[in-house]
Amino acid sequence: MNNCLFCKIAAKEIPATIVYEDDDVLVFMDIGPIIKGHALVIPKQHYDPITDTPDEILAKMHVTAKKIAAAQMNAFGADGVNIMQNNGKAAGQEVEHIHVHVIPRFANDGHRWNWNPRKYDDVEEMNELAEKLQQQL
Amino acid sequence: MNNCLFCKIAAKEIPATIVYEDDDVLVFMDIGPIIKGHALVIPKQHYDPITDTPDEILAKMHVTAKKIAAAQMNAFGADGVNIMQNNGKAAGQEVEHIHVHVIPRFANDGHRWNWNPRKYDDVEEMNELAEKLQQQL
Repeated sequence: MNNCLFCKIAAKEIPATIVYEDDDVLVFMDIGPIIKGHALVIPKQHYDPITDTPDEILAKMHVTAKKIAAAQMNAFGADGVNIMQNNGKAAGQEVEHIHVHVIPRFANDGHRWNWNPRKYDDVEEMNELAEKLQQQL
Repeated sequence: MNNCLFCKIAAKEIPATIVYEDDDVLVFMDIGPIIKGHALVIPKQHYDPITDTPDEILAKMHVTAKKIAAAQMNAFGADGVNIMQNNGKAAGQEVEHIHVHVIPRFANDGHRWNWNPRKYDDVEEMNELAEKLQQQL
């Protein structure tokens, strides 16, 4: 796709530090890592967002992310790994070409997600939202 | 697995607000939502972390997460969706049974991930980490 940064990286028109590639996916280092060692898994073909990505490509991306997670644990001694895939500006997505963040985590790495659970007014409110989801499945 | 909260939910020993289930996966509402409508996708069988989860189960979880993401967009008018899967306490994982968070996002929902990119000292540092990953693949 014209003017898509990740398409240009996939086409080798823009350089990146590549970790892995095959016919379907490319893995490269995020130049703005949440934690050093942070990698991105993208499909070589342009898809975005998740809802427009074929199941087999999505599956391939996550099976690849699993391999990268294992490599981060083995190569860096990471204590954990975040797998994150953001869809839409509202979700924090910056490049509109589907990508999976694979972020190595260490017990004292100083990073905290802003994980602040909210509360439902009551269980009925939660159940109503679940019913609305079910109606779309 | 004994004393695993999500195994007990999968076995219907502990109640949850279920959105979807089939032979392999269960989707239910997170009672501590980052944003209301937040759902969790789990395998019915116990696996943890990602590196010990079979590829076909991981793929099934993410294809299911895609369906839930579409439902959140359609049912709630969500502007975006976060897909997040945390491995290890260091990564913020609380229940040690693999689960994918599917979090609907809205332009003015008031939530911000603490997304603060770090910098490599130089490109060599990044390239060296990439080489270490490659050696494990």
